[in-house]
Amino acid sequence: MLIVMKTNATAREVDAVVDVIQAIGLRAHPMPGATRTAIGITGNEGVIDSRRFQDLPGVAEVIRVTKPYKLITLDLRPEKTIVQVGDATIGGGELAIIAGPCAIESREQALAVAEAVKESGARFFRGGLWKPRTSPYSFRGLGEKAWEIMAEIRETFGLKIVTEALDEAGIGLIEQYGDIIQIGARNMQNFPLLERAGRSKLPVLLKRGMAATLEEWLLAAEYIMAEGNYNVILCERGVRTFAQHTRNTLDLAAVPAIRSISHLPVIVDPSHGSGNTYMVTPLARAGVAVGADGLMVEVHNHPELALSDGAQALTPSQYAQLVNEVRAIRRLTSAAG
Amino acid sequence: MLIVMKTNATAREVDAVVDVIQAIGLRAHPMPGATRTAIGITGNEGVIDSRRFQDLPGVAEVIRVTKPYKLITLDLRPEKTIVQVGDATIGGGELAIIAGPCAIESREQALAVAEAVKESGARFFRGGLWKPRTSPYSFRGLGEKAWEIMAEIRETFGLKIVTEALDEAGIGLIEQYGDIIQIGARNMQNFPLLERAGRSKLPVLLKRGMAATLEEWLLAAEYIMAEGNYNVILCERGVRTFAQHTRNTLDLAAVPAIRSISHLPVIVDPSHGSGNTYMVTPLARAGVAVGADGLMVEVHNHPELALSDGAQALTPSQYAQLVNEVRAIRRLTSAAG
Amino acid sequence: MLIVMKTNATAREVDAVVDVIQAIGLRAHPMPGATRTAIGITGNEGVIDSRRFQDLPGVAEVIRVTKPYKLITLDLRPEKTIVQVGDATIGGGELAIIAGPCAIESREQALAVAEAVKESGARFFRGGLWKPRTSPYSFRGLGEKAWEIMAEIRETFGLKIVTEALDEAGIGLIEQYGDIIQIGARNMQNFPLLERAGRSKLPVLLKRGMAATLEEWLLAAEYIMAEGNYNVILCERGVRTFAQHTRNTLDLAAVPAIRSISHLPVIVDPSHGSGNTYMVTPLARAGVAVGADGLMVEVHNHPELALSDGAQALTPSQYAQLVNEVRAIRRLTSAAG
Amino acid sequence: MLIVMKTNATAREVDAVVDVIQAIGLRAHPMPGATRTAIGITGNEGVIDSRRFQDLPGVAEVIRVTKPYKLITLDLRPEKTIVQVGDATIGGGELAIIAGPCAIESREQALAVAEAVKESGARFFRGGLWKPRTSPYSFRGLGEKAWEIMAEIRETFGLKIVTEALDEAGIGLIEQYGDIIQIGARNMQNFPLLERAGRSKLPVLLKRGMAATLEEWLLAAEYIMAEGNYNVILCERGVRTFAQHTRNTLDLAAVPAIRSISHLPVIVDPSHGSGNTYMVTPLARAGVAVGADGLMVEVHNHPELALSDGAQALTPSQYAQLVNEVRAIRRLTSAAG
Repeated sequence: MLIVMKTNATAREVDAVVDVIQAIGLRAHPMPGATRTAIGITGNEGVIDSRRFQDLPGVAEVIRVTKPYKLITLDLRPEKTIVQVGDATIGGGELAIIAGPCAIESREQALAVAEAVKESGARFFRGGLWKPRTSPYSFRGLGEKAWEIMAEIRETFGLKIVTEALDEAGIGLIEQYGDIIQIGARNMQNFPLLERAGRSKLPVLLKRGMAATLEEWLLAAEYIMAEGNYNVILCERGVRTFAQHTRNTLDLAAVPAIRSISHLPVIVDPSHGSGNTYMVTPLARAGVAVGADGLMVEVHNHPELALSDGAQALTPSQYAQLVNEVRAIRRLTSAAG
Repeated sequence: MLIVMKTNATAREVDAVVDVIQAIGLRAHPMPGATRTAIGITGNEGVIDSRRFQDLPGVAEVIRVTKPYKLITLDLRPEKTIVQVGDATIGGGELAIIAGPCAIESREQALAVAEAVKESGARFFRGGLWKPRTSPYSFRGLGEKAWEIMAEIRETFGLKIVTEALDEAGIGLIEQYGDIIQIGARNMQNFPLLERAGRSKLPVLLKRGMAATLEEWLLAAEYIMAEGNYNVILCERGVRTFAQHTRNTLDLAAVPAIRSISHLPVIVDPSHGSGNTYMVTPLARAGVAVGADGLMVEVHNHPELALSDGAQALTPSQYAQLVNEVRAIRRLTSAAG
Repeated sequence: MLIVMKTNATAREVDAVVDVIQAIGLRAHPMPGATRTAIGITGNEGVIDSRRFQDLPGVAEVIRVTKPYKLITLDLRPEKTIVQVGDATIGGGELAIIAGPCAIESREQALAVAEAVKESGARFFRGGLWKPRTSPYSFRGLGEKAWEIMAEIRETFGLKIVTEALDEAGIGLIEQYGDIIQIGARNMQNFPLLERAGRSKLPVLLKRGMAATLEEWLLAAEYIMAEGNYNVILCERGVRTFAQHTRNTLDLAAVPAIRSISHLPVIVDPSHGSGNTYMVTPLARAGVAVGADGLMVEVHNHPELALSDGAQALTPSQYAQLVNEVRAIRRLTSAAG
Repeated sequence: MLIVMKTNATAREVDAVVDVIQAIGLRAHPMPGATRTAIGITGNEGVIDSRRFQDLPGVAEVIRVTKPYKLITLDLRPEKTIVQVGDATIGGGELAIIAGPCAIESREQALAVAEAVKESGARFFRGGLWKPRTSPYSFRGLGEKAWEIMAEIRETFGLKIVTEALDEAGIGLIEQYGDIIQIGARNMQNFPLLERAGRSKLPVLLKRGMAATLEEWLLAAEYIMAEGNYNVILCERGVRTFAQHTRNTLDLAAVPAIRSISHLPVIVDPSHGSGNTYMVTPLARAGVAVGADGLMVEVHNHPELALSDGAQALTPSQYAQLVNEVRAIRRLTSAAG
């Protein structure tokens, strides 16, 4: 159920509706918007009697939700969510660029890449501490000891730190030292992890699962939001198909599809979405042209020596060129849109 | 085997090599390029003795082909093929736009759409006469009688006519009345049809099969070229995956992938590649941004009344807006590239 | 529309209904069954007025068809179709085994394999004359000249000849010399070819397309039947997925799925359905256990020398073992079912 | 690296090799077999010098591993692993049947189903306590309070309890009250969870991920084994494809494929592998015919009232019939094999 408040409803009236919701043992999700506040309700097992709410002061409309979604939906929030990360944003006017190496391998490597990221004007630095690797015998990241490097990058360059958590302990550490919690494709339906991220104050970057339908992906976001964390960024990173010329098939139609359903920002990862360096820049251009709010790109100072995913990493100068190209497209599409 | 001629080889020297190839019962495919001519050889069952050719006048190099391709490859022709269609081109500087209805339904409909196509500055008109329909009980096009309408469009608007052939008789008719033979996704491995198209003087637009790997698609082009028709245009139109928010999953990485292997031009069909009107323009922008040589777009004067594929057709005004947007992106990427 | 005749309707009454259908320009498809005859109607563009038929003598019921199928469906024919091929059958009590080499390579090879097929008690010999090959440069079969070999096999061993037609001319030749027309996976939606097969007197073995949904496959059968040929055998041969341990992913659930919708017999091809010799026998057992009416299996006297698909061909002795195993399972499931 | 001991090597010699492995900081995985013991080594980052081992007493051969697998492989253990679960086994002579409801819903429901499972002669009872559901708003199981019901089933019927763990806490509880830890498809690459299961004394049933290649699945098993738990049972439950007539496409070729690489037992889940009650028994027959070591089947006393997955659950009498049919096939294939 979804309660739409009148445009002139007062904060007190909103609170009063929230109180009623809580009083009957349910959870209220008030979403203030440009013109009105709406309140999503979760926690009910059956149908809620709408008559409880329809005559409360300030209530404009009580809507029964028939779609599988309650909180990600444009019905609840017609304006796009802008995720604020310190002084940077994702989903607003600026194209958000998250760049960095697949894995933090050494202080020297991480700082060299971070410098290039900073120079390009990007605001977000990515870098894995705990890498989910298909084989237990592959390099799995430096782990906690890399936080020191991350802290230095954060301080020196003022970049926001984005890193993937594989378990609840990892989220705890990101909360201490980082800025955005990344949930990887393999964990898109790791529901306890999603719920833990939902209880965090940090924004969550939720990658699409390897074989996830749009509905499954959006319901994974719903898991996070149902716990009270509404700062979710979706990331299309390609899906698994029969095609063999790429590591994954980047499904750019997901961007307009999400736009038509959800207020959440969506970014594109052309690095995992192709697996080949020479495709990254063309697909980054395509991702921005299709309307994504940002990009996630792998950059390495020496791709040929990378301990993971070297075949899809850009050099700093390739990356700088990419940023120029995508910014030009962004200016064009912003002007048009 | 592939014979690269010296940059200063004379036409007579090229002819002499071709004569030797034919004399031993094989087929020669000379491809003149900007700096040199190369000659592909097909028809051999085993290995050819390279010593036959290496000392002929004008021969620079004899290369054994180890890839599955002989004729589509950049080894044979390092420059991109520009397909000339009357006074228009595909693969050259200009973005090629092929637009029109899924099926020709009536003179009134076809002319209304053709006018919009003409006004947008596009040079190619598409429209199905024989529609391959999943069900035998669906509308399957007007058939031959629509050629009269096509002839009128060609004459009135100067548009080049692109239509799909389902069988050899269809190719014969397109040769009489049309400009480009389209081979549809369902017929991508209809080898007798490919060979018939390969014996035509008209360019062939070859759509990717629903589940075709890049290699299968390029080898289908090879079938056409092996018969002597080198004017093949590839068209990415989405592949079949588990995803349900689109009719097909548009695989834009195919564009840079083909670029890295083949000299053939490649265009993108965002209409079949999505199946939803609201996605067509964003995906068209993405297709141009990724580097495609052109677009194929479905336009209908009354999409809601269309006898086939109405859900993916643009209105003339949506189409005009699309053309503006993609041309702007094209100017940007041409300048950069 | 579907007209169900009373159980005691006379042949004359059936004919009278057929006459009315034809008189209004439509096509009648009478299907005699164990207890009653039903008559499918095709050729109508809009809705037919059922009142025309409901009071005709012998008519029990007039049913409007709301599914996409008219002729393949259990509504039209509740009993399974048994396809008669000379003195052999497919879809009846006996497990139908179609075995032979991928391609006819030589008289010696074909006869050696045919002898093994005969000895195993199978009734059908397969062997390609025109092979659809991904590359134009691969061995594509002996073509027409292999008919002489086929004729010898047919006469010497009394085996029924099953071979694939790639075009209409091929169907003509099979009609002269063979017993069953095979339509391959790549041509499942080659609609002119399906319609030509629909005008043949020979049974048609219709392989599932590489990425065909069940509905698309059954509608391809409908194309054949709508032309008047009701002897269609469906063949599951695996579909294309991301999986790499097999050439195709054999979708055995298609067998019960078809059973629940259609009266047509369905067989399984574990050779193409796996692409690996060591998997063929286990998957053949599974195909029979799931309820298929038969198997199509590749056998070669020297798989290591095969000109095509050698990696999936069984030796005659592996094949003999397979036949023993699947017959035992068949006896079991027949007794149970 | 893999060290094969001589057939007459003593326990002391094996221990001595293990000691050397541990002394250089690596992990030893001794696998006793019918004729010889082999010892896998993990934990090395680079190449190990084989000369350390080749002259130790009892060592027959030192083999460098070039495949991605070290522990799941037939090289390490040529005989099939038989997982012992109390007095029952999986992977041995007996067909292992794991049956029960999707979720434990009530004492009444669980006991009714357990009784049917017991009567059929199956040894394993499945039932979810924590259900991973696509939507956060669906029924997610009774949670811990259902352990009481499980304990009663275990005691009353002597059935072994198989249930899925979603997190490390869940594994802890299964260790207290259950018999087999199930890792579900969505968690197949939840590596911290796999490692926790690897440190358990209980056998682990590892379902294949929705889009997992064989290699990814086997490497997930390798994650568990690398921690010292060698009792892993693989479960094929269908993969995601474009096909729409089933919930998942059951990939039965995975069974012979695994057999050719690994010593681990493999079972088939025709319930999730089809999603439709009417397909479960045919696919169960196929699973046994292809050579699986067992089945996992959903049974519900009132499928039409089930709180999850009712559309794929068998009634107790359908289930009893299934057991009869698959046992007959098993007898046949055991006799043949």
